[in-house]
Amino acid sequence: MKSVVIHKALDLRVEEQDFDAAPGPGQVDIAVGAGGICGSDLHYYQDGGFGLIRVKQPMVLGHEVAGTIASVGAGVLTLAPGDRVAINPSLPCGTCKYCQAGAQHHCLDMRFYGSAMRTPHVDGAFRQHLIADARQCVRVAEGVSLAEAAFAEPFAVTLHAVNRAGSLLGKRVLITGCGPIGALTVLAARVHGAREIVVTDIVDATLEKAMEVGADRAINVADDPTALDLYAADKGTFDVMFEASGAERALRAGMETLKPRGILVQLGLGGDVSLSQNFIVAREVDFRGSFRFNEEFDLAVDLINRRKVDVLPLLTATYSVDDAVAAFEAAGDRRGAMKIQLSF
Amino acid sequence: MKSVVIHKALDLRVEEQDFDAAPGPGQVDIAVGAGGICGSDLHYYQDGGFGLIRVKQPMVLGHEVAGTIASVGAGVLTLAPGDRVAINPSLPCGTCKYCQAGAQHHCLDMRFYGSAMRTPHVDGAFRQHLIADARQCVRVAEGVSLAEAAFAEPFAVTLHAVNRAGSLLGKRVLITGCGPIGALTVLAARVHGAREIVVTDIVDATLEKAMEVGADRAINVADDPTALDLYAADKGTFDVMFEASGAERALRAGMETLKPRGILVQLGLGGDVSLSQNFIVAREVDFRGSFRFNEEFDLAVDLINRRKVDVLPLLTATYSVDDAVAAFEAAGDRRGAMKIQLSF
Amino acid sequence: MKSVVIHKALDLRVEEQDFDAAPGPGQVDIAVGAGGICGSDLHYYQDGGFGLIRVKQPMVLGHEVAGTIASVGAGVLTLAPGDRVAINPSLPCGTCKYCQAGAQHHCLDMRFYGSAMRTPHVDGAFRQHLIADARQCVRVAEGVSLAEAAFAEPFAVTLHAVNRAGSLLGKRVLITGCGPIGALTVLAARVHGAREIVVTDIVDATLEKAMEVGADRAINVADDPTALDLYAADKGTFDVMFEASGAERALRAGMETLKPRGILVQLGLGGDVSLSQNFIVAREVDFRGSFRFNEEFDLAVDLINRRKVDVLPLLTATYSVDDAVAAFEAAGDRRGAMKIQLSF
Amino acid sequence: MKSVVIHKALDLRVEEQDFDAAPGPGQVDIAVGAGGICGSDLHYYQDGGFGLIRVKQPMVLGHEVAGTIASVGAGVLTLAPGDRVAINPSLPCGTCKYCQAGAQHHCLDMRFYGSAMRTPHVDGAFRQHLIADARQCVRVAEGVSLAEAAFAEPFAVTLHAVNRAGSLLGKRVLITGCGPIGALTVLAARVHGAREIVVTDIVDATLEKAMEVGADRAINVADDPTALDLYAADKGTFDVMFEASGAERALRAGMETLKPRGILVQLGLGGDVSLSQNFIVAREVDFRGSFRFNEEFDLAVDLINRRKVDVLPLLTATYSVDDAVAAFEAAGDRRGAMKIQLSF
Repeated sequence: MKSVVIHKALDLRVEEQDFDAAPGPGQVDIAVGAGGICGSDLHYYQDGGFGLIRVKQPMVLGHEVAGTIASVGAGVLTLAPGDRVAINPSLPCGTCKYCQAGAQHHCLDMRFYGSAMRTPHVDGAFRQHLIADARQCVRVAEGVSLAEAAFAEPFAVTLHAVNRAGSLLGKRVLITGCGPIGALTVLAARVHGAREIVVTDIVDATLEKAMEVGADRAINVADDPTALDLYAADKGTFDVMFEASGAERALRAGMETLKPRGILVQLGLGGDVSLSQNFIVAREVDFRGSFRFNEEFDLAVDLINRRKVDVLPLLTATYSVDDAVAAFEAAGDRRGAMKIQLSF
Repeated sequence: MKSVVIHKALDLRVEEQDFDAAPGPGQVDIAVGAGGICGSDLHYYQDGGFGLIRVKQPMVLGHEVAGTIASVGAGVLTLAPGDRVAINPSLPCGTCKYCQAGAQHHCLDMRFYGSAMRTPHVDGAFRQHLIADARQCVRVAEGVSLAEAAFAEPFAVTLHAVNRAGSLLGKRVLITGCGPIGALTVLAARVHGAREIVVTDIVDATLEKAMEVGADRAINVADDPTALDLYAADKGTFDVMFEASGAERALRAGMETLKPRGILVQLGLGGDVSLSQNFIVAREVDFRGSFRFNEEFDLAVDLINRRKVDVLPLLTATYSVDDAVAAFEAAGDRRGAMKIQLSF
Repeated sequence: MKSVVIHKALDLRVEEQDFDAAPGPGQVDIAVGAGGICGSDLHYYQDGGFGLIRVKQPMVLGHEVAGTIASVGAGVLTLAPGDRVAINPSLPCGTCKYCQAGAQHHCLDMRFYGSAMRTPHVDGAFRQHLIADARQCVRVAEGVSLAEAAFAEPFAVTLHAVNRAGSLLGKRVLITGCGPIGALTVLAARVHGAREIVVTDIVDATLEKAMEVGADRAINVADDPTALDLYAADKGTFDVMFEASGAERALRAGMETLKPRGILVQLGLGGDVSLSQNFIVAREVDFRGSFRFNEEFDLAVDLINRRKVDVLPLLTATYSVDDAVAAFEAAGDRRGAMKIQLSF
Repeated sequence: MKSVVIHKALDLRVEEQDFDAAPGPGQVDIAVGAGGICGSDLHYYQDGGFGLIRVKQPMVLGHEVAGTIASVGAGVLTLAPGDRVAINPSLPCGTCKYCQAGAQHHCLDMRFYGSAMRTPHVDGAFRQHLIADARQCVRVAEGVSLAEAAFAEPFAVTLHAVNRAGSLLGKRVLITGCGPIGALTVLAARVHGAREIVVTDIVDATLEKAMEVGADRAINVADDPTALDLYAADKGTFDVMFEASGAERALRAGMETLKPRGILVQLGLGGDVSLSQNFIVAREVDFRGSFRFNEEFDLAVDLINRRKVDVLPLLTATYSVDDAVAAFEAAGDRRGAMKIQLSF
């Protein structure tokens, strides 16, 4: 069985591993079919981690995957070999105070695929076979490809962000940053009724994709740095902003276009950013972090299954697992790539 | 009639002005009795303004005032000479989109006493007589002093902040910064049911006052810089934080003690602050600005009238209007002063 | 000028009136083009009113109208003759406590077209010419018919109901009653992201229309009275219910299919209904009335303009104003009619 | 060991049972000290149940209890013999979808003391010894009596109701019905900042108790049936209503005094009630059931421990367990009794 293993920054290897595990009770064996490369995968590859989280031991990457059930363990009644599923990479403990409060994504003992947050690290799902819990699997509808299903995880991240924002009924929305997360946020906001969606980025290709999936207007803030000023007049225009770039400049410029009491949902990871305390006070900005997802994973698969959204325009290219390093290089080129997937 | 007029930084004058105005229809003439010196008054005195707001012409200061009705204009039926009132310093237009949305404090054409936000500046209420709209006046109960009533305005600011935080039922609360606003926030949070209130500051005298008005624990973070670490363990302790210091260090240290999805209400004004985007995302912090007040002014007077709160422990000293400069100097000394008032 | 005037129950007359009024400052003269017959119009026609509201004097009916600007009064800069507009039938006072709180639809001095709530009654808009305030007019996009635009008002009612329910992200929705309001609620809920929409009625034709505009499943509860039982198992299935029938049986049966803490929005008017207090307590039902609309009128036109929704499948027939009585008879036949409009 | 066992309506027996059980891992043995008689206990005694819930086999009653730890099982580190505790009568499963969503009080497999909801029934805590899980126990502060601690359960019910209502900041509150639940709601609303509390009942003695624990005005609606009309004028006065009587008349009369969008929390159990659908729509009433409690139990003990509330004025009398029948007879007399407790 082949796995995609990060050893340290710029040291990513496709390794052959034995695989003869059988699914235990409540588990399934999945032949992984498609896996998307996420920004955090890229950080491990490019930098060996992000912030305080560093790769300290070899770790299989990958948490945006879909596959086909190969076999099922005892007591698994809802899945059968041949079923195609999207795989939720979250394994919360279920018993800590956050799990019992319905906030499993803040579990004090979370195991999340392909994450070096805890040591030993939790291996990811970029491998040809995977033993998972049946409860992690959400069935993919007929006619929907595994490539589409592998978008469920990042799409869930953006649905969670929309959930954090509350109802979008009648709301004018700004999305800063149109990488995969920003573009999927366009889909998530559109399908939940945003009245108007304006997107910004500094790369035309990504802006074009955002328009293709439903944005109303795209602004290249590198080419046209004052284009947002119009929206900042009269105490702002937007009711909701999704910050998906992680860039201080985008955050600050966008915030000034928010109406009083506007909601700013931060999705993009980044470093320290400098903000005006006085502006936040005077505008009564409501600045909310959004982290991963919870019940939105199931919803993401459902929306893809029912064709309420079309994620395929965001798939740039698919590489064989053998070409994983090339795939990561391609994923790192923001000008050329939206989402890069591996096939197994 | 004497007025307290700021000309430029460190140039504050008590000036004699003629006053022979009579209240028009719907207006009242008020003999001002007590006026509290606010942080923004101090900024005008010490720095000639704050941020982009600068004193460009002589302006009467003051917006925390209470007085006695001297005479009433035509059509004023609810007030009579001799009535004692707290005076709301806000004059929203009533017709702009924010006024019509119930957010008068974001009025596009707000006139606020003693503010240089617009030019010509809006004169304040540190003067012996004031013509105001009857709707600005809230009656003070028998037995309540004008000094207490003059706390209505800053207390309203903190009630608004509590309002921004939502219900405090069962909530553990951190308040950073125990100047007048922080200390009044203790009162506001306590009377609305906060389960536990921890306060921080770097001056013992202010912490003692905070304890006196209802805090459960006071921490001098200058003396004991790691005391908050305990509260940061296991993804945090506090459900709600009120930031009343305007200091980056207090904001960052406090934020780390917030539970996932905790609410951080920013009241204190300050400059640019550096925040960790990743922390805001991963902890799903909900960081909300709180600006002035709206219907909370009326509530502030009511709570003072009904003796649900006692603001008097926060009154440090009262100076005659003739000694206004000395009063401003005293107000500028954080170690010695909580709230300084003028009497007229 | 012809007007459609109700005199008393079953006494509806098309009357010729002189019209030589000119629009005053801020006003416009509109040549009314299309007008939909609403349930309340029908109540006036069939019963002379509803509840305590009775027709006591002749009154022009109609409040779902669109037309073409004939001329504009002084100071009207945003509209010009020839512009086609949907007309908001609400005229709130703007100054009462509810208007100042952003709840204009609860205005203490509301004037609403074609309503006998106050005496003298407020005439409606089923007439060939109408003087209205420019602020009541929302421009209709090119290519959108006046017939579609005349759906803005009832569609706004359903958008308001969706607004009352909060975010529909991931929510399973039940809609009881598929007359025009129930069917428009399907559109409103769908465009705001409801995960699943089940509708009930006792007339197949209306259920078919509901399916046509986006419901996932339709249940004829007359034919299949136990079909909802399945949804009531295990403490319920639906997160949100919109009650658009005004029938006690639909309300009670639907309520039992709501999950604990589910939200039940009541739109349909009806008489007294008997509810189980114990069930409301034990299930923690959240039962909310929804009345007319506020800023949702503007949104309704926008969604129709941008083709985010298609209301035309709900238009059953259009009658000339001369045939108003026949139109009202047709509108009263629930088996044959969804929405009946008049053309002027 | 003596237990208070209901056999059928009006057949309540104090029975001697052997007790030689030892606490298992994570469990404690509690010498029960005080137990309050709840309305549901009374229903079992007077009627053999309520609604569809009937006593089908002998069942120990009681769920409002406090006691002293006699011994602890393996692994119990936080409690020791001699500790005095309030006992949470809820035993949710922890794993069903409602438990995992933080709504344990809607657990699909709840075990609740002294409830005939499931068969075999779950025995209650009116007995001299009780084996409970350590997690059910909340420590009682020094100086607080077990009698006070036994109020934690019904007080938690009212805190949950206040939680359902959202923030009470600035809110005018009506409470209909001043039995133990209504009176405790006064305490709960007062400590969470209600601006004004008006209570109604038909018994003067209960109204006097409500005033004693913090109501601002008491209205005997039997003596003065039109006293609420004043509050119904101009579309209502109250922002929040707590219905604690279970009486249709109280519900309907109270609802008419609610402002548009007012929140009506139903706590009182009752039968079917007739409501005006049109009123609920036009007033946009928000009518919410409130069921038991969740994290509010812990808060109830905390507020009693910290002396933020004083429940003792509501304790009418304490009977020895041997006189349980007399105690139930006394508890059934609304004119004479507020809360009756047993001592063990």
